[in-house]
Amino acid sequence: IGITSLLANGVYTSAYPLHDGDIDGVTAEPNDRKLLFEEWASYSVFYKYQPIGLIRKYFGEKVGLYFAWLGVYTQMLIPAAIVGVIVFLYGCATVDDNIPSMEICDPRNNITMCPLCDSACSYWKLETACGTARASHLFDNPATVFFSIFMALWAVLFMEHWKRRQMRLNYVWDLTDYGMEEEDHNRAEYELRVAEKTMRQDQGAAKVGLRLEMVISDDSWLSLVCLPPSFQIFITFVITFGVILYRISIKTALHLSTYPAARSNIRATVKTTAAIINVIVIIILDEIYASIARWLTTLEVPKTDKSFEERLIFKTFILKFVNAFTPIVYLAFFRGRLVGRPGKYLYVVGSYRMEECAHAGCLMELCIQLCITMLGKQLIQNNLFEIGIPKLKKLLRKRKSELTSKQEEELHKTLKRYEKDHVLGPFVGINPEYMEMIIQFGMVTLFVASFPLAPLFALLNNIIEIRLDAKKFVLELRRPIAAKVKDIGIWYNLLRGLSKVAVIVNAFVIAFTSDFVPRLVYQYTYSPDGTMHGFVNHTLSYFNVSDFQNGTEPNPPNFNVKVCRYKDYREPPWSNTPYELSKEFWAILAVRLAFVIVFQNVVMLMSDFVDWLIPDIPKDISFQIHKEKLLMLDHFMKEEGRRRDNHNHDGYTSPSSGSASPHSRPTFHARAGW
Amino acid sequence: IGITSLLANGVYTSAYPLHDGDIDGVTAEPNDRKLLFEEWASYSVFYKYQPIGLIRKYFGEKVGLYFAWLGVYTQMLIPAAIVGVIVFLYGCATVDDNIPSMEICDPRNNITMCPLCDSACSYWKLETACGTARASHLFDNPATVFFSIFMALWAVLFMEHWKRRQMRLNYVWDLTDYGMEEEDHNRAEYELRVAEKTMRQDQGAAKVGLRLEMVISDDSWLSLVCLPPSFQIFITFVITFGVILYRISIKTALHLSTYPAARSNIRATVKTTAAIINVIVIIILDEIYASIARWLTTLEVPKTDKSFEERLIFKTFILKFVNAFTPIVYLAFFRGRLVGRPGKYLYVVGSYRMEECAHAGCLMELCIQLCITMLGKQLIQNNLFEIGIPKLKKLLRKRKSELTSKQEEELHKTLKRYEKDHVLGPFVGINPEYMEMIIQFGMVTLFVASFPLAPLFALLNNIIEIRLDAKKFVLELRRPIAAKVKDIGIWYNLLRGLSKVAVIVNAFVIAFTSDFVPRLVYQYTYSPDGTMHGFVNHTLSYFNVSDFQNGTEPNPPNFNVKVCRYKDYREPPWSNTPYELSKEFWAILAVRLAFVIVFQNVVMLMSDFVDWLIPDIPKDISFQIHKEKLLMLDHFMKEEGRRRDNHNHDGYTSPSSGSASPHSRPTFHARAGW
Repeated sequence: IGITSLLANGVYTSAYPLHDGDIDGVTAEPNDRKLLFEEWASYSVFYKYQPIGLIRKYFGEKVGLYFAWLGVYTQMLIPAAIVGVIVFLYGCATVDDNIPSMEICDPRNNITMCPLCDSACSYWKLETACGTARASHLFDNPATVFFSIFMALWAVLFMEHWKRRQMRLNYVWDLTDYGMEEEDHNRAEYELRVAEKTMRQDQGAAKVGLRLEMVISDDSWLSLVCLPPSFQIFITFVITFGVILYRISIKTALHLSTYPAARSNIRATVKTTAAIINVIVIIILDEIYASIARWLTTLEVPKTDKSFEERLIFKTFILKFVNAFTPIVYLAFFRGRLVGRPGKYLYVVGSYRMEECAHAGCLMELCIQLCITMLGKQLIQNNLFEIGIPKLKKLLRKRKSELTSKQEEELHKTLKRYEKDHVLGPFVGINPEYMEMIIQFGMVTLFVASFPLAPLFALLNNIIEIRLDAKKFVLELRRPIAAKVKDIGIWYNLLRGLSKVAVIVNAFVIAFTSDFVPRLVYQYTYSPDGTMHGFVNHTLSYFNVSDFQNGTEPNPPNFNVKVCRYKDYREPPWSNTPYELSKEFWAILAVRLAFVIVFQNVVMLMSDFVDWLIPDIPKDISFQIHKEKLLMLDHFMKEEGRRRDNHNHDGYTSPSSGSASPHSRPTFHARAGW
Repeated sequence: IGITSLLANGVYTSAYPLHDGDIDGVTAEPNDRKLLFEEWASYSVFYKYQPIGLIRKYFGEKVGLYFAWLGVYTQMLIPAAIVGVIVFLYGCATVDDNIPSMEICDPRNNITMCPLCDSACSYWKLETACGTARASHLFDNPATVFFSIFMALWAVLFMEHWKRRQMRLNYVWDLTDYGMEEEDHNRAEYELRVAEKTMRQDQGAAKVGLRLEMVISDDSWLSLVCLPPSFQIFITFVITFGVILYRISIKTALHLSTYPAARSNIRATVKTTAAIINVIVIIILDEIYASIARWLTTLEVPKTDKSFEERLIFKTFILKFVNAFTPIVYLAFFRGRLVGRPGKYLYVVGSYRMEECAHAGCLMELCIQLCITMLGKQLIQNNLFEIGIPKLKKLLRKRKSELTSKQEEELHKTLKRYEKDHVLGPFVGINPEYMEMIIQFGMVTLFVASFPLAPLFALLNNIIEIRLDAKKFVLELRRPIAAKVKDIGIWYNLLRGLSKVAVIVNAFVIAFTSDFVPRLVYQYTYSPDGTMHGFVNHTLSYFNVSDFQNGTEPNPPNFNVKVCRYKDYREPPWSNTPYELSKEFWAILAVRLAFVIVFQNVVMLMSDFVDWLIPDIPKDISFQIHKEKLLMLDHFMKEEGRRRDNHNHDGYTSPSSGSASPHSRPTFHARAGW
């Protein structure tokens, strides 16, 4: 309490533990910092295990556990990445045998599709979607189903593996009995609030009105806590919707433009720019939301530092998660589903038609979005925020001091350790690093059904991330105050929650976003010869062009086209109930939902089984702990016995107590930490 | 080991701890057994809490925990029973406002239904199903959905409540650190097997052939373990099927019989007799399966006694569970679904038509089955097996000794304690009692959606069960050897598994067995005026009587009927695809499946939330444990310091060590058990 109040009063500007010594120059004598720099914080040792013991010794348990966790996560990503690549390669290898994309690419089928926008667009031939259809197959094939199940089990295995590793580290670091002894100190802000409340209550003992006011202020304070996050989530939704509108309007504008070059690249341009805008918005909002979450938690005045940290983390997580995943969820589950049908399109904000998906489902666009989000977030956040900005700051400082490098080196030698460390950035906690990784874990598990390369991307990023974080901790930041913790706390629960949500999300992605279920249903019920031939035709409904609403028909009109096709399961114009949802639609919907139920329950059962199969505590560790308990008990018993003997000796001069002299006492080797 | 080998050799016939004394007669001095009999093992104290401390003192922790668990379970059943009764009363109160049953009962609708069996049965009027329809409403109304959600949360609350109670008992009984010290001794059978194996290996060192044989025998031993349970499950299925066949054939026979009285009571008679046969078969198989499970586990030769017990319990549980629930699952999910349709019925074993449900769904029959199973099992097992048979045995023993009651009393006085206890039954473990309760827990949670009175039945049974078991333990059995356990072991996992399975089973019961979803869909999409009017007509399909297969039309034919109705969603005879499943069928199926997904995930989320909300260890207990750890640490530190001082004193004659005399040592009150 002493140093913090001095810091708060401005007597000191900052307080921090000193680094062990310099890492560069020939003058530096060997020290732990230099050792860490050479053996850990360097890209050249990326293939080596991290020296977790040394990290813990230098930075404390909290930082040590983070790097241990990151190491386990990265290690576990290796098999996931390998299987993901195999699944992707399977898609590449079978793309030429895929009957639906062959049928789409075959110009002999000559299918005329309904226009993609009102009046400005014309009818188009299905074979122009050939490229997209072939690309979609890379991510939408039966191997993806297998891969989602694999990744769900992978997540469980990862959690189990980490639990065991944590237990082992707890044992090695002597934390098995820690946590019970930990005292949760109340935060100064909380004490202040309680004091204020008590004071007000004392004052208000006479005036009951005041007390009432206090109760009211308490209530309004609650609403303060609940409202802003919902408001922020609302803002995220608005922005996502804004990006959708941008896509729609740009697309319309490009369609209207007369340059043929622009028109031919419409789809690619719009998709990519929109995804990039999304990523930039996500990154900017992330920074804003982090500070809002901190401000909100301060308003809440939690009781202890631990509860403060947990609430802050939880709030930040919710906001960042919604922020990162809203565009992806839109693409996966809503895009192309709220379109309406030819002749009765759904319009938003006046006259904008909702976007349709490319012919072979929205999976391809989801893929691109995931790819850009993962790459973009990682590239921009890592390179710009974590490397670029510190470098820039250093450069600016150098420019300011206006010294030549020679002079500076000279000066550097004369500086004291605490002066050298003062120019480094302050340590702001390990939570932002965890947060980044948890969001990445979400990307890897949640939508893995649509992007099997996600684990590979994550793996490549993490190999760099470990060393990058290491460099930051060793070189760029002041040494943190060592914090003793037993586990990774709320992060474990968040991971567990994510891996549970992942099962149901993947079930829905496979059932609804991919064409897996319709293909299966077609092959086993509607197909005349049990093959996929005719599937494309089966997924397309008919539309009589005379049923277009006024002003929405293509302009100039194409009088050769009487009937165009669109992707949906609806009755043809010549049925009794034209354009109604057909029986096929409902049958396929039922199968999709049944698939979700079966998938979710089977995967959950398998996960529970794996969870039950692997003991939480490694056998050798539990044996060791058991042995130590016995030794301890034994020692205690002996002490008790000896004391009783001593007592007898003192009180009754019993003759049998002579053997209990201090010299004959058995030596007892308890491990430190008891 | 000593006494068990003597027992095995037949030197002693039995070994058991003695009871404290007699409980009857004026001569008996006050003792714990008498106290237990008066305060616990008597129906007159059924409203009192159990004296758990005394039970534990007299019978040991294992029995104590069972009764504590049974107490918590019974107590938790009270709110469940109350809510269940309210739900049932709600059904009773709204039965007259229920439009579908009103429509069924209205003779003006005059709906002619297709015959229920081939040739012997005639067409029937829907209004004759009026009673069943009204009764069905008691168990199939919107309140049932609420009740299933309530019971899922109730199960979670029960588990949490028990965890906390167990923790508290652990603390009070000084078991918090127990379990670590527990040594798992290898079973004698296992040691023998290992010894035999080693011997054979030694012999086979020269002959490799023998070793190979051993490997083969090991494999065949594995198949021995896996095959019989599957065989038993198969037998259970066969018997269930047999009962179904019995019902079908009896029904046909009764239809054929000419007595009008017999024909009018057909349904009720068949239902009730079949359910009773089922119950009797279940009870008989239960006894057989228990011994088979024991035999199988002996064959497996598990390593330790604990693993032997767990394997035995798990096997017995699976067999008994399948045995008890197969007929219920058949009624809930398969009955009436594999019927086929008029003109194309499904026939089994030659010419038996599969049974249809009564008009208002199979829920009513499921209800009757559950009711009879619960009542019957409890009545028969409790009264016959647990009261009747011991009484009978006692009677036989008395008859044998051929003494008058006067003489016997005289003799009784002269008997030694061990002679008196020898005539009592041997203690066979607490597991059969647990098993009975777990199966009951399954009945209460698994199909609660179809039978809201189940908790009430269970509650009434348990109030008796507690005292019945108590009487048995105090009066009828020899005193068990006290066993120290920390928790209820595998039973907790089984309970947890059951409550997880219950969520999905209830979701399916509501979605598929009850008419909840079709009613909802009708009201919000097909109904012309947004009410339930016309629902019954909507659920019935049309059948043209000229499409009957040869020989299946009613005999004598009724020429007035041209079209009859049956319960299904199929195209009418005048459509392009007559008797195909209609669009409504698929739409309702999709909604049913969507309901399952929503129900399961919402309930799971709520359960996880409740689980997370309630801490596993009560706050006061965790505080106490924490305080004791600190005291212990403190004591240890002081001892260490004192010893170091002593050492100094002895070795170096340090002057500061004089204060560490045994007399000035602070007294340390550790709770026993450390």
